[in-house]
Amino acid sequence: MNSLPAAFHQILTQLLGEAWRTDAAALEAHARDNSWRHALPLGVALPSTREQVQAIVRACREHGVPLVGRGAGTGTTGAAVPTAGGIVLSFARMNRILEIRPGDRCAVVEPGVLNGDLQQALMPHGLFWPPDPSSAEICSIGGNLACNAGGPRAVKYGTSRDNVLGLVAITGSGELIQCGGAYTKDATGYDLTHLIVGSEGTLALIVEATLKLAPRPRAQAGLRVLYRDASAAAAAVSRVMAQPVTPTMLEFMDARSLELLRRNGAQVPEAGAMLLIDADGDDDTLPYLLNALAEAAEGDGLLALDVATDGSARDKLWAARRALSPALKSIAPGKINEDVVVPVSRIPDLVEGVQRLSLEAKLPIVTFGHAGNGNLHVNILYHPDDAGENARAHAALPKVFALALELGGTLSGEHGIGVAKRDFMAQAFSPATLATMRAIKQALDPDGILNPGKVLPL
Amino acid sequence: MNSLPAAFHQILTQLLGEAWRTDAAALEAHARDNSWRHALPLGVALPSTREQVQAIVRACREHGVPLVGRGAGTGTTGAAVPTAGGIVLSFARMNRILEIRPGDRCAVVEPGVLNGDLQQALMPHGLFWPPDPSSAEICSIGGNLACNAGGPRAVKYGTSRDNVLGLVAITGSGELIQCGGAYTKDATGYDLTHLIVGSEGTLALIVEATLKLAPRPRAQAGLRVLYRDASAAAAAVSRVMAQPVTPTMLEFMDARSLELLRRNGAQVPEAGAMLLIDADGDDDTLPYLLNALAEAAEGDGLLALDVATDGSARDKLWAARRALSPALKSIAPGKINEDVVVPVSRIPDLVEGVQRLSLEAKLPIVTFGHAGNGNLHVNILYHPDDAGENARAHAALPKVFALALELGGTLSGEHGIGVAKRDFMAQAFSPATLATMRAIKQALDPDGILNPGKVLPL
Ligand SMILES: Cc1cc2nc3c(=O)[nH]c(=O)nc-3n(C[C@H](O)[C@H](O)[C@H](O)COP(=O)(O)OP(=O)(O)OC[C@H]3O[C@@H](n4cnc5c(N)ncnc54)[C@H](O)[C@@H]3O)c2cc1C
Ligand SMILES: Cc1cc2nc3c(=O)[nH]c(=O)nc-3n(C[C@H](O)[C@H](O)[C@H](O)COP(=O)(O)OP(=O)(O)OC[C@H]3O[C@@H](n4cnc5c(N)ncnc54)[C@H](O)[C@@H]3O)c2cc1C
Repeated sequence: MNSLPAAFHQILTQLLGEAWRTDAAALEAHARDNSWRHALPLGVALPSTREQVQAIVRACREHGVPLVGRGAGTGTTGAAVPTAGGIVLSFARMNRILEIRPGDRCAVVEPGVLNGDLQQALMPHGLFWPPDPSSAEICSIGGNLACNAGGPRAVKYGTSRDNVLGLVAITGSGELIQCGGAYTKDATGYDLTHLIVGSEGTLALIVEATLKLAPRPRAQAGLRVLYRDASAAAAAVSRVMAQPVTPTMLEFMDARSLELLRRNGAQVPEAGAMLLIDADGDDDTLPYLLNALAEAAEGDGLLALDVATDGSARDKLWAARRALSPALKSIAPGKINEDVVVPVSRIPDLVEGVQRLSLEAKLPIVTFGHAGNGNLHVNILYHPDDAGENARAHAALPKVFALALELGGTLSGEHGIGVAKRDFMAQAFSPATLATMRAIKQALDPDGILNPGKVLPL
Repeated sequence: MNSLPAAFHQILTQLLGEAWRTDAAALEAHARDNSWRHALPLGVALPSTREQVQAIVRACREHGVPLVGRGAGTGTTGAAVPTAGGIVLSFARMNRILEIRPGDRCAVVEPGVLNGDLQQALMPHGLFWPPDPSSAEICSIGGNLACNAGGPRAVKYGTSRDNVLGLVAITGSGELIQCGGAYTKDATGYDLTHLIVGSEGTLALIVEATLKLAPRPRAQAGLRVLYRDASAAAAAVSRVMAQPVTPTMLEFMDARSLELLRRNGAQVPEAGAMLLIDADGDDDTLPYLLNALAEAAEGDGLLALDVATDGSARDKLWAARRALSPALKSIAPGKINEDVVVPVSRIPDLVEGVQRLSLEAKLPIVTFGHAGNGNLHVNILYHPDDAGENARAHAALPKVFALALELGGTLSGEHGIGVAKRDFMAQAFSPATLATMRAIKQALDPDGILNPGKVLPL
């Protein structure tokens, strides 16, 4: 599609007035996400109400115009990039927190609310919404739900999918559907809520969400544990996850990550791998929880274990963790960062396999991430201007996915599929399973107007 | 359908040998569940492998034969009753625990494994599977998943849907699909797993499940708290759920429930309502947890608070709770037991509304259940032989549902829809939402052979 049908343009103008934009600046501002992909839309709609969203979808359907929903555009997979042309529907103006219901431990929000803004609003109620992507301050709840985003806290509190109770959404057929609500137990009909979560705007556009909240813990503390090698650290992860105290976060860093931290001035002793283990509770119980976690962390290959209770020591630990992703740039300007998942018990095999691939590709690969969920970030580092490195980096990527799948894992734990991993879906799922996903796509979006070319392989 | 096509009969005989039954005893043994409904199937298939299940579904599809999956037949909604004729496919012989993976906190099972048998097998590993329907000893994992079954522990640990990581299933198109796996974080494609859970055998037959396990807590203790009235108890439920210590169970009993307990010899003081609040942890932390829960339970309308640590006092508390359902029979032989859900903050309105309906119907209605999830069992008691009572009881039922929906709740929190609540689905969901559910049914089961006439209103 090279231009929009005149009749369509007219409908949108009438419907939205100045909230229908076709100027170059608006198009350019909605042409990218946080991947390197770029594609100009033919128009940008900025609706303020669900009725407008529904009317836009109906107009798109009538005129065969592809429609890409957009939260804050922080996605890393090209999911929000209008690669099939058509229009972008931005939820930037649907950003009201509609209700905070402390007694029901839930909040009702429009999709454009930023994750960080919601957390601020929940603070006085002693509540929080568990999904904690590093991008929290700048990404939208709608985008979090559409990608099933998560962060380190997922090991205890789950991802976006685990923290949503109900949705109002407009399907690709232009119908407004409502599922779930302000309750936590539901055996009534098909679970449309969890189906729409993670579908990256390809099945329906979320116009309202009822979010499950958790009470803010009163105190937090952490452990820094060093191990001889990745195997020893991974075995400790399994032990930690098998005892009754679930950590709030359980992060793994391989030898290369530690090297990198040291190179950037952090004081991290020599070790083959490190775990950061966090717990939350209150002042009375926290010491016991930390004790249980420390006991589980101890075992073959342990080099050192330090406790950091709430405050600056703990902040330093986590600052080191957060510094990692930006620090990668000091090794090489190019980075392919994938967030594969494996069963927790297979983490050593993943780390070993990745080191093999690193040798084979003659490129540094740095592995760290959310070990309690088996969700590791594998960062392939290279110089994009070096044709050889570039080719070897991109040749290594499918091997990382193949390794994760071979170990009984999957392609993505939090970033989603978008365009970036779309073509690997055929390795992750059987033809029959993909056909079933396609049949569901067809059921909710019969004309294929919602975010075409994403998630499902062509 | 009055008889099976001869060619179909032949295929099944060849495929299954003695595991294909058409004798009167076998048919009668698969004609009921735990509702009052009865319908004879035309044949009973008892496959041992997923390949056989797939071949059976394909034969049913080819010959247009309706197929009802069956676990242990303990459902209360008629979901497993072959009301449309056709055949029953029983999972009784697919009852192997395939793998217990303590390091990955998961187990891989065939669907016919009984919930109680799995719990036994997990005991030596210090793990358990959280879903705890009262029927645990006699119901199957496949049935639990198909109904999204739950129990009192759901307030802390979630229902069946929250405790499954992956499924292998045969859709109504006869395709074997595989989704999820031995990992706890997943942003890879559409979430077929959670969609199939709760779909009561109408979308796909589950032939294998990877279940999320939890570590067994080392100690448990409970509180018995009496309140002036239901409102005071319900306000306490909200307070308990708003502070950071999530109880393991949080059960509510109304004045009538207490009366009933006393009438049956239990020593329960006079009160308007009672909460049983349980916590789990270890010997070190439990006192603090109980303290936090007791503090939250205290407030306006509190009459008495007793602590029962692990052991006989606690057992007595829970025995009283368990005695309630059978004790209902002492009031009247007929019972309509529905498991509606409302937002926790609306529990007082539900209890009040139900008392109004009780007066109006001139029938006792007893309300108790899983207050932490807003999931209450509303028991309408009557004499089935008394035509007036019978009519008034069945006239009261839709009003109970209407009340729950009006309060922002839903029809069922754990029992599911089956035939019993099917016709109320049109009140719970908009036509567009139901149409979307129907489109999904059509996508996974294009010929409508899987459990026709269940869940979705005709
Ligand atoms: C610095 C940085 C750190 C990050 N860290 C993390 C992390 O730790 N964990 C993590 O999971 N992710 C992380 N991300 C990725 C990204 O922030 C998340 O995927 C986030 O959920 C995207 O939200 P968004 O509002 O920006 O969505 P967008 O990028 O705008 O859109 C993403 C997808 O969601 C769809 N979508 C958006 N809104 C809706 C809606 N209302 N209805 C239907 N579909 C919709 C879009 O169509 C698109 O397919 C990070 C990104 C950056 C830039
Ligand atoms: C005394 C008693 C107490 C109960 N207490 C509770 C309770 O506390 N909480 C609760 O939630 N329920 C309770 N129930 C209801 C019932 O036990 C649950 O719904 C249970 O999950 C049903 O399991 P089943 O194996 O008996 O399933 P069945 O009754 O055989 O089947 C139920 C539904 O599941 C489908 N099904 C079965 N196996 C499969 C499969 N492998 N693939 C696809 N579909 C399948 C059937 O087609 C049917 O639609 C109780 C029942 C009784 C009799």
